[in-house]
Amino acid sequence: MVVKRVDHIAIVVPDIEAAITFWQDALGLEPEFTERLDAEGVIVAFLPAGDSEIELVEPIDEDGGVARYMRKRGPGIHHICLEVDDIRATLSRLKAAGVRLIDEEPRIGSGGKKIAFVHPKSTYGVLVELYETTPEEPARRLEVLDRMRRQLAIQGQVAAMGMVGFIRALRGRQHPVTPYPGDGEENGC
Amino acid sequence: MVVKRVDHIAIVVPDIEAAITFWQDALGLEPEFTERLDAEGVIVAFLPAGDSEIELVEPIDEDGGVARYMRKRGPGIHHICLEVDDIRATLSRLKAAGVRLIDEEPRIGSGGKKIAFVHPKSTYGVLVELYETTPEEPARRLEVLDRMRRQLAIQGQVAAMGMVGFIRALRGRQHPVTPYPGDGEENGC
Repeated sequence: MVVKRVDHIAIVVPDIEAAITFWQDALGLEPEFTERLDAEGVIVAFLPAGDSEIELVEPIDEDGGVARYMRKRGPGIHHICLEVDDIRATLSRLKAAGVRLIDEEPRIGSGGKKIAFVHPKSTYGVLVELYETTPEEPARRLEVLDRMRRQLAIQGQVAAMGMVGFIRALRGRQHPVTPYPGDGEENGC
Repeated sequence: MVVKRVDHIAIVVPDIEAAITFWQDALGLEPEFTERLDAEGVIVAFLPAGDSEIELVEPIDEDGGVARYMRKRGPGIHHICLEVDDIRATLSRLKAAGVRLIDEEPRIGSGGKKIAFVHPKSTYGVLVELYETTPEEPARRLEVLDRMRRQLAIQGQVAAMGMVGFIRALRGRQHPVTPYPGDGEENGC
């Protein structure tokens, strides 16, 4: 067995607060973890659904790959992430089968996961992320949340803001990224 | 709690046998259930991944909604399906929240499920299927497989064909649907 489960489904949205209104208020999924990833130019929020998560991704950097993707393709599903037992062994197996890889070596993604992307040219248009858990992952999620809570407390913003207020504070002062067509790369992670 | 888990992720592909080569041979997911849905003009195959499934969908009717979708948007993720406790209560809640629904009443989908679709206009471009299990569902899956195996045995095709041969037999004599641009509706389920 290579794939253990669907870890998450990532959805690019122009406004993460408005998207949470649908997923939380209308469908009852609670955001559990959120993170600002400056290197990727995004804010992400994870909403557990059974053994998987819905990941909402808002681009906050006009020049980032996810912003370019959203301008080209519009909001919607960006990728799916599958948990595998052994990411290096899986990448070797895919490479041997002639599958085109975006990452030939695993790298560290949101929450401290070991991740790698498979190119959608080899999967009929589906951007597939592979993920192997690391022993550090739960501790890193907690550490990220603690650090952000401390920053927000310093700014006097922590009282009763809830997760949406917390995300708003994470977003900071960037201009919102508009989701409408322009030129861009195929995908931006 | 409204949503219990991600039931499946549906991927439209021009050739279900070739797609299975990637998902099965390269990622180790085994097709468990397959069905030809003449009303929708598709063959579907479900590959369990943990508590969810990957659904591969090949359009076999040039004039069907899924074929039109693939001509317009190309192969790729078509929809995600979320299992809910009570589909009627969920549809009422969504309607009250102003969410646009494709199906205001649940209908019966593949495998005997009660299903309904939410319009992607209300979800930032994600076609969401809601699903409530029915007591008849496992029996209906078995009955569909048994009926098809009997039909294939009658045609003398059953020996050692495996799941891919079985799917090939399901496809029958339709011309393959080409996945390239043309006019079509937004989605076809």
